[in-house]
Amino acid sequence: MRSGTQLTQGLRLALDGGPAWTVEAVRQARYHVVSSDHLFAPDNPALLSGCPDAPLRTGERRLLVVDENVDALYGGRIREFFVVNGVAATILVLRADETVKQWDAVCRVVDAMNDFGIDRRREPVIAVGGGVLTDIVGFAASIYRRGTPYIRIPTTLIGLVDAGVGVKTGVNYSSGKNRLGTYAPATATFLDRSFLRSLDLRHISNGLAEILKMALIRSEKLFGLLETHGSAVRADRFQGTTDELAGAADAIIAESIHLMLEELQPNLWESSLERCVDYGHTFSPTVEMHALPELLHGEAVVLDMALTTALGTLRGDVGEADADRVYSVIRALGLPLWNDVLGDTTLLEHALQDTVRHRDGQQRLPLPLGIGGHRFVNDVAPAELREAARLLRGRAQALPSDTLAETLVHA
Amino acid sequence: MRSGTQLTQGLRLALDGGPAWTVEAVRQARYHVVSSDHLFAPDNPALLSGCPDAPLRTGERRLLVVDENVDALYGGRIREFFVVNGVAATILVLRADETVKQWDAVCRVVDAMNDFGIDRRREPVIAVGGGVLTDIVGFAASIYRRGTPYIRIPTTLIGLVDAGVGVKTGVNYSSGKNRLGTYAPATATFLDRSFLRSLDLRHISNGLAEILKMALIRSEKLFGLLETHGSAVRADRFQGTTDELAGAADAIIAESIHLMLEELQPNLWESSLERCVDYGHTFSPTVEMHALPELLHGEAVVLDMALTTALGTLRGDVGEADADRVYSVIRALGLPLWNDVLGDTTLLEHALQDTVRHRDGQQRLPLPLGIGGHRFVNDVAPAELREAARLLRGRAQALPSDTLAETLVHA
Repeated sequence: MRSGTQLTQGLRLALDGGPAWTVEAVRQARYHVVSSDHLFAPDNPALLSGCPDAPLRTGERRLLVVDENVDALYGGRIREFFVVNGVAATILVLRADETVKQWDAVCRVVDAMNDFGIDRRREPVIAVGGGVLTDIVGFAASIYRRGTPYIRIPTTLIGLVDAGVGVKTGVNYSSGKNRLGTYAPATATFLDRSFLRSLDLRHISNGLAEILKMALIRSEKLFGLLETHGSAVRADRFQGTTDELAGAADAIIAESIHLMLEELQPNLWESSLERCVDYGHTFSPTVEMHALPELLHGEAVVLDMALTTALGTLRGDVGEADADRVYSVIRALGLPLWNDVLGDTTLLEHALQDTVRHRDGQQRLPLPLGIGGHRFVNDVAPAELREAARLLRGRAQALPSDTLAETLVHA
Repeated sequence: MRSGTQLTQGLRLALDGGPAWTVEAVRQARYHVVSSDHLFAPDNPALLSGCPDAPLRTGERRLLVVDENVDALYGGRIREFFVVNGVAATILVLRADETVKQWDAVCRVVDAMNDFGIDRRREPVIAVGGGVLTDIVGFAASIYRRGTPYIRIPTTLIGLVDAGVGVKTGVNYSSGKNRLGTYAPATATFLDRSFLRSLDLRHISNGLAEILKMALIRSEKLFGLLETHGSAVRADRFQGTTDELAGAADAIIAESIHLMLEELQPNLWESSLERCVDYGHTFSPTVEMHALPELLHGEAVVLDMALTTALGTLRGDVGEADADRVYSVIRALGLPLWNDVLGDTTLLEHALQDTVRHRDGQQRLPLPLGIGGHRFVNDVAPAELREAARLLRGRAQALPSDTLAETLVHA
């Protein structure tokens, strides 16, 4: 709710002509994001009493949907937690990646809810997995009996800092990314960094892309943290094996989430279409779906950010030195700086048109202003995109490559 | 929003232990229900300017989803309206009845929205048809890009007084009625009684069942209107061919809708589970799905009401004379008073259990108090249901039958 908006409630009847009614009502939304490491340690009370709106008591039962990779690694520990705490857990193991983020996956969750005979007021579904899994489960829960509560336990970095803290759910439909979905906050999201220890570095980088996004548009301080500690924290998988790494990992995650929630809270249902958190998400949905399964979500986002940073340089909004700092951090975080798809101007134009349709007829493109700032523009033209792509390609070839990143760069 | 509820907005961060955030926000909902007969008469401005939140201008375009029966009868007139008013209309003709109220139908609407390249802020989908069609289209629109506006033009009586004025959308899933759906008000619903002239009498009766529901729990006055004029207004299909019939038709529809909106507005998202508008909807979802396609929705609802009226008599809440008035009106409105499915106590118990699950562990059963009143109970037992069914069956056999209604009565 933007400030200045008047809330109104009631029923009005007008009788000029035939009767005409106006119904107005107001709905309260509330959700929690709670940090607690080692959630499934048998004596960790966070899942039982860590969220006042989602208590879990001995003698109750829960339906869990767990990503199949997570189940292979942590399934025993998860089951043990519920046994020790006297909660009967029914577990649906689900494969969840972008290629199966479709209606069929929603049906599998719905079937499990039917079989479980879920009580839609008292038994929130618990989703344990990456952003794809929590998006699928959140969508299924939000439409089951017109809304059943759910809880998210993200197990990837992108889930922790992005998909897990917002209110969007959804699945792809034909070639449309998240074409079907809802705004439905999880009652609670529990953040547990310890899952990241088993995540491959490419997926750590995938999450760092969304953290970098928040830094680029909102916080030079967060950018500084990434510049100084990003590479080391990545290699450490946010596990904090030294005090310095622990401090940096804590600060990077907390700062990124806080900035994200500051942006989301006043505009939870996207009534305002000028969302700086859409930075990196103008060209990336089309790029990601086009390149599927080559690029992860964060990789597509970072390509979008690299391109628009170059565009900022062309416009004099991002100095060349700042742009090179951005490109270097992208490399240091193990993320791609170039992909040949950026040379396909027709595809980029198509992506821009689709975004315009999504944003009520205008581009409303957040573009970087230096590092940590942004502005919105409506006048990006195809020729400018071509020029930005040319500029970026040159910088990507000129800048020294990080060895780990090299495998992802197709320049 | 129930009175006394405090609305809160903002972002709170707690730092005892790991960081924990609470996000609170408030969402405004508003929708319109506008009466205007002969909506598609070329010079009727209602669809163009009748709703301030859904203007339609020359030069714009719209996607319509039209029921196939409606299209056969009114398709030419509908197309002409848009041509004359300079609006490019794309029409998806859809079969819509309870047996096809499934996900496949949602997909057909989504495909049409994709093909149309709909602008989700400026181009509301227009649904023209009965409650099944508007439920399908409403669901599809509400999940398309996480919410695209839609407009309802109900063409059946039940659509006019019930499905068309609430905020529920949905489709059936396996054997679960409206198992998948959303709360998503149409920006505007336009009520046009003239469509009813081509509706068969069984479907007029189907709508009268929901009007009778509002009368039984909320308004002895409305019940009196039905008792006095119901049969004649039904035969006249609400077309008002005499002044008296016109006055009665106007009063019955307006009163029923007004009572319905009074009940819905303070509880739009069903945060309170004690909803008197759920009267007739405890056993009927199971009965309807079980008997599909034998019973229409309103027929299943009226069987539920007949049974619970008998139950009220057993409890001393509805006198025998009042109960017989209710049964007589049911007959006079061309509705069934008995179906052998009511003798299947196992099925009724199953229905009650499903309702309990839907209502957070309690029955919260609205039961009639005399005519026009209600109370909620939580203690209906199987033996009592058997007894009520026995009582009702006896009355159904004893009461003189209306010839039209007789075809639907299996006593």
